[in-house]
This record gives sequence, C-alpha cells and structure tokens, in this order.
Amino acid sequence: MSITIVGLGLIGGSFAMALRERDPKNLWAVEVDEHTIITAQKRGIIDKGYREGAVPLRHSDIVIICLYPDAAASFIKDNMEYFKKGAVITDTVGIKSGLIKRINPILRSDLDFVAGHPLAGREYKGLEFASADAFAGATYIITPTERNDERALDLVENVVREAGFKTVLRISPERHDETIALTSQLPHVIAAALINSGGGCEPGLLAAGSYKDSTRVARINSKLWVELLLGNRENVLARIESFEGCLAEIKKAIAGNEAQALGAILEEVRIKREGIMQMPEKSL
Amino acid sequence: MSITIVGLGLIGGSFAMALRERDPKNLWAVEVDEHTIITAQKRGIIDKGYREGAVPLRHSDIVIICLYPDAAASFIKDNMEYFKKGAVITDTVGIKSGLIKRINPILRSDLDFVAGHPLAGREYKGLEFASADAFAGATYIITPTERNDERALDLVENVVREAGFKTVLRISPERHDETIALTSQLPHVIAAALINSGGGCEPGLLAAGSYKDSTRVARINSKLWVELLLGNRENVLARIESFEGCLAEIKKAIAGNEAQALGAILEEVRIKREGIMQMPEKSL
Repeated sequence: MSITIVGLGLIGGSFAMALRERDPKNLWAVEVDEHTIITAQKRGIIDKGYREGAVPLRHSDIVIICLYPDAAASFIKDNMEYFKKGAVITDTVGIKSGLIKRINPILRSDLDFVAGHPLAGREYKGLEFASADAFAGATYIITPTERNDERALDLVENVVREAGFKTVLRISPERHDETIALTSQLPHVIAAALINSGGGCEPGLLAAGSYKDSTRVARINSKLWVELLLGNRENVLARIESFEGCLAEIKKAIAGNEAQALGAILEEVRIKREGIMQMPEKSL
Repeated sequence: MSITIVGLGLIGGSFAMALRERDPKNLWAVEVDEHTIITAQKRGIIDKGYREGAVPLRHSDIVIICLYPDAAASFIKDNMEYFKKGAVITDTVGIKSGLIKRINPILRSDLDFVAGHPLAGREYKGLEFASADAFAGATYIITPTERNDERALDLVENVVREAGFKTVLRISPERHDETIALTSQLPHVIAAALINSGGGCEPGLLAAGSYKDSTRVARINSKLWVELLLGNRENVLARIESFEGCLAEIKKAIAGNEAQALGAILEEVRIKREGIMQMPEKSL
C-alpha cells in the first residue's frame, strides 16, 4: 500500500516514523517547508517528499492529512483532481463536524473521507518533536458518517493501529465535538485564563504541581487553537458557561464561609474524578 | 537533637523517613491513630510513637507539626505547657497568616514558632504514600515574622534541607497567602468546577492529557481543602474574580468570532507561561 502524509509536523512526522517501521510499499509526504522535506528524507523517515500534492496523490491508496483545520479543508479541495481513484482520505483535525460539512459535499464520488482525531496532541510542534512511539497506547477517534464505506473505516482503523494507537473509538462527529469541547478545548481556555489572571503575583515563586499541571497547555499554539476554538464555537461557549456556573457555586460557598456546603461539593468532585479516570474507554 | 513529628500522614511520614536517614538523637512521633504508630515503629521509621504530646514534647528540641490547619493550631494551644524550654515549633500548613495570628499571641515567651509550607503536596494522603525521597528537590517556604529568632529560622531551614528540600524561600506570611491563592488554591477550585461542569458528557471517553492534568487535583481531600480555602478566603475570592474576568475576555472573543483578538490573547498567554516556568526561584 502506498501512503502519503500531508504535513510533517508533530503528528504527521510521528505518523511517518511509526508507519515507516511497518514497511509500506511507498511512504511519501507533502510538505510546504523544503528544509523539513530534506531533513525527513535524510533521516529516512519518508521515501520522498513533495512540495505539492499532484505527483504522490495519484498513486496513494491512503492520504493522511496532518494539517491545521482550515489548511486541511483547503488541501483536499485544491487537490481533488489528483487523488487516486478509490483512495481513502483521512485527517487528524481536533474538531470534526465543520470539516466534514466542508468536505463531503465536494468530494469526488469514488473517494471516501474518514474523519479522525488522534488524542495525542502535545504542547510542542514540528518534526523535531515527532517520534515513532508518540502514539503508543493512545486513543484514536474516528467519526463516521453515512457517506463512509465500511472498508474505508476499517482501513483507517488498521493504519492507525499500525501507527501505535491502542484504542480506536467510533463516535458521531457531533458527539465528538460536544465532548472534546469539555475534555480538551475547555481545559485550554481555562489554562489561558489562569495564566492571564496572575496579575500582581509572581507565580513562578510558588508554582506548585497543581499550577504547573493546570497551565501546561497554556504553552499554546495560538494559530491552531484559534481555529479549533472558533471552529467549535457553540460547543465551547456552552462548556465555558457550564463551567462558569460551577465555579460560581464554589465561590458562593467560599464567600459565605459555608464549610458544610463547600465540603459536600469537594467530596462530590473527588468521587466524580475517581469515577472518570476508572471509566473504561469504550466504543459508542 | 531530638525531633518530634506530630501527625504521621503523607507529609509527616515523609519527614520521618527522610530525617531517619540523618540519624537524629531521637525521632519521636505523636499520632492519634494507634495502628499508624505501630506500623511506623515496626518499619523503624520512628524511635517511638505516642498518642499524646506530653511525654515526647518535654524532650524535643524541634517539633514539626504536620496536621491540618485547625488541628495544628489546637495541638500547639493544648500542649503549650509540655514543650521543652527554648524549643522551636514549626508546621506545614498550606496557609500561614491565620495560623500565625492564632499562635503567636498565646506562645510561651521561651518558645519560637516558625511557620512553614512544603510545596510537596499530593492528591493522596496517609503514611502509606509517604516516602524518604518525597521532598527531594522540592521548595520549602518559611514565612518569618518579627517574633522569630534568626537561630530558630536557620534551624528549621537546616532541618528541611536535611529532609531533602532543595530550595528554601523566606517570604512574608501575607505575600505567601496571596501567591498561594493563585498557584495552588485557584487551580484546585478550577479543577473542582471543571469536574462538576461535565454534565451530559462522558469525559472519560475522550479525556485527553489536558483534561487529565487539569483535573488531577480534583481528587481532593475535602476536609483539608475546606480549611485551606476558607482559611484564605479573601485571597481566594480575589483570585477567583480575577480569573473570571480573564475567562470572560476569552469567551467574548470566541462568542464574537474575533480570530485576531483571540490569537493575540493566546499568544500573550504562551509567552507568559514560558516566562513563568523559566523564572528562577529566588528569595524575597
């Protein structure tokens, strides 16, 4: 099978390194940065890299697009004529409904677009942080639609398992975007607000583990995150508002010196948190 | 030197294990739980444990109180007559001003109370999670007042260094409580609100690293944290309000679909976050 990876950043580079070890027939890359292509070729991560899609796409059975949301949509649109007949296109964008709505109506009828999301982001970017074991044990989300062929879904599932993902979940795009607003986008927004709320203090002096952990993702890739937050705006706003309500409840108990009410809230939280982390990952 | 540790939980137990290796003349403990005393004696963590303070305190040069805030204040008050002449009393409570105000006015004139705070909390409690290297490389805060003798401050600093703390900072109690409201109490409140805001979702399904990190401390010890939050109420409320303002600013940019404003906020956050973590720890 011939594979093309589009975008050799943290995710694309890790895909290339992990799949390289499975010895595919051809492993090509499309990457706008010439220097990154040269590096990847020298290190043997890919067979060959291209600045544009035309040549490798014609012979690729699966195309894994590892670009930011807007760039991913544009790439598929702009290269529609080049994809091999019957090819499977997949992506790794962190929000799904909007992208699917942009792609499916313009997709050639012989092609299939399987939307995916590796739960393996990090607060770094670029090929230099990619690694062959970046996905080891991680979870991959696939968000099928009625437009998808079962064989295409299975192909993507197999490829991501080959790349090291342990759990592959199939969830509707809508459910994905609702949930990811809570589990990824809200924590990023909170981390950003927490960093900005430090006026008048030198948090570095007393930055305990809780502060470090809660602000880790504030080392944010602003270009990517503007797209993710605005691309999932309704869900993100709903989650922020729900969070604000819960924060106000705790604040009220503190302001009113209500030890019993505060204790009850914190105890409920502890039990919920332990439940969440014990919850087995399962398919929906 | 004879040392008594009061409370053989996570912090007290770790102190005992770490100081044991330095072979003090006597290493005693006061602990209300008989089973914990027996375990600690059997494992050789302490020379001898007592249910009450009267006997060991009479011969202890330094008493390290590792209890919750209210219990720490009560212990010192209730055992005032037993402390050895000239002894140094120190504590490990996470908020300082209130405790100092409760202790100093009632302290025998020959005693010195040095308030301390190990930045080494964990989301677990009890002797079973204690370890001899729990403090290795961590920061210890001492909050001196005019009532303190320089020799007493140095003694506590030396003992905590012997226990493994690498950096010892001296900060005023007021400054400590202001800063810790931002760097520890606010992240705990946020983690609790974040857990409670998950209604309608199954976050366990898509719990990425950011969610896990941001809610780690939601495995909260509710009894302890009610005391910490209410004991530092004014500072905590001010920090919650500042955070709410910063969150509202981000929310506004998302709601208004303002890519440029949102990008500017996130970029500022990234730079601040990198600055905080590079900031050298220094004395004030």
